[in-house]
Amino acid sequence: MIYTVTLNPSMDLLVEIDGIEPNITNRMNNDLRVPGGKSINVARVLRRLGMPSVATGFIGGYTGEFVKDWLKMEDINTSFIEIDDETRINIKLLNQNIVINGRGPNVSINEETEFLYFMSRIQEGDTVIMMGTMPPSLDDDLQDRIISICKANKAEFIVDAEPKQLKEFIKRGPLLIKPNLSDVEKMFNVKLDTRELIVEYGFKLLELGAKHAIISVGEKGAYLFSGGHAFKGEGVKGKEVRSEGVRDAMIAGFIATYIRTSNLEESFKVAMASATATAFSKDLAKRHQIEDVLDKIIVQKLI
Amino acid sequence: MIYTVTLNPSMDLLVEIDGIEPNITNRMNNDLRVPGGKSINVARVLRRLGMPSVATGFIGGYTGEFVKDWLKMEDINTSFIEIDDETRINIKLLNQNIVINGRGPNVSINEETEFLYFMSRIQEGDTVIMMGTMPPSLDDDLQDRIISICKANKAEFIVDAEPKQLKEFIKRGPLLIKPNLSDVEKMFNVKLDTRELIVEYGFKLLELGAKHAIISVGEKGAYLFSGGHAFKGEGVKGKEVRSEGVRDAMIAGFIATYIRTSNLEESFKVAMASATATAFSKDLAKRHQIEDVLDKIIVQKLI
Repeated sequence: MIYTVTLNPSMDLLVEIDGIEPNITNRMNNDLRVPGGKSINVARVLRRLGMPSVATGFIGGYTGEFVKDWLKMEDINTSFIEIDDETRINIKLLNQNIVINGRGPNVSINEETEFLYFMSRIQEGDTVIMMGTMPPSLDDDLQDRIISICKANKAEFIVDAEPKQLKEFIKRGPLLIKPNLSDVEKMFNVKLDTRELIVEYGFKLLELGAKHAIISVGEKGAYLFSGGHAFKGEGVKGKEVRSEGVRDAMIAGFIATYIRTSNLEESFKVAMASATATAFSKDLAKRHQIEDVLDKIIVQKLI
Repeated sequence: MIYTVTLNPSMDLLVEIDGIEPNITNRMNNDLRVPGGKSINVARVLRRLGMPSVATGFIGGYTGEFVKDWLKMEDINTSFIEIDDETRINIKLLNQNIVINGRGPNVSINEETEFLYFMSRIQEGDTVIMMGTMPPSLDDDLQDRIISICKANKAEFIVDAEPKQLKEFIKRGPLLIKPNLSDVEKMFNVKLDTRELIVEYGFKLLELGAKHAIISVGEKGAYLFSGGHAFKGEGVKGKEVRSEGVRDAMIAGFIATYIRTSNLEESFKVAMASATATAFSKDLAKRHQIEDVLDKIIVQKLI
């Protein structure tokens, strides 16, 4: 089973508004509420690609109910730890490019322990996808401890983190990492301005410990590194509507296909199609949107 | 029974944040969720003053559950019409003085009819307090129709509206209106810069049809007009923390006392104490805060 771990999920409040000014009552033109959290995005795209997962993490309050019910409505299994405090609200003022994220709830030591107990039951063959930020009340090392549980139980894990922390996590052998080019540059304190350099550092990620590594280079596409192989996927031209969730969709596309087929090239193609279709869409890409893009994805084996 | 009618309640999201900038992820320092809506404020202050009411209006979704549960927790009777759409979220960025209000849910014709049926059961001796905005999907004349129901059933009603609309409502004989000085100036297109003029126009409000009228003049206090009498209440000096809900607290203070005692001067004093204590407080004033201020309120009978 795939476990999508969202330690700090959210209800995202998407607000359409012409402008905001102090000292008056600004009125929304429209608003939409959707569940947020990187691993929740992964779970949703996995489901659209026909791959079940169990969404877990900490959830609480009316906003938590909202997130859980939404996932259930999309036929995604949930096994969140119910907490006393409330799942955060993230505010996105569309058109204004203003994002105001909540801090996240207070998670008690008992709630944390309950979660670790739940995670301890994962087993060989399972994959844990753990992405996004943590509620501020939790110890920084919680992600580390979850990785330790994965390793002890011989489960695969996928992590996403800031460059510095990601470098540490890679050493512990994740199934997949998916940094941007600038993340890799920060990790190694280098400038990667040629394809040769990108390929060189892609293989360094594998040497460090990652089983698969995808480096995205924005609209120019992405690279996949695995074993002795490197692939380049070309970007698809189109109107980019959103950047949020694109990374998450790419991971979902890769994992959904790789678990089913073990075919690297095909998995990379679906990863790129999922990311591209999401970038072109208002919401996370739906299956037919991914399939529409798939034919346009050109993947070239470099090595 | 008192019915507090909130046609467009809200979950207010109070956000403490140092500043907001586009194109980055701004993070809240803290956030708090409270129920909003003018008549809901009235219901809460009434309750704190020991006066029961039934909170009604349209409510839906997770945000609606939040509002209902909060009111129940404060021991306030609720009899909202459950709607399919979701109760709005209003965003208040504290310190930034930025208010972003939601539009409000879609209310279907069936839901509206159910509400009118509920209202039709009010009777002589009941008081309907109906304040605040309407969800945009509702007809402008809904408030009018509710007033007609009150009149047909010989129930008292209290309304709050923009000056132009308020002038129309007054003609129908509300128990109490509570405009600011500037509202009265707008209603009659005059400048009221002397006490004599304020008193003159206060009595005009009664002539138009209001049974009681309170005109607030900001930190200078307020005037009460009733029958042939006019009272002036002096403002109390203190640190004003909030302006929201002050008007609502004043109405609650007046009504809670007037229904119990019919004593004009005492009701006006509690009205002013409730408003003042709310202005000095982070939340709506609690009973002990109102009682603390009460002794400082000086009310003078002018006529």
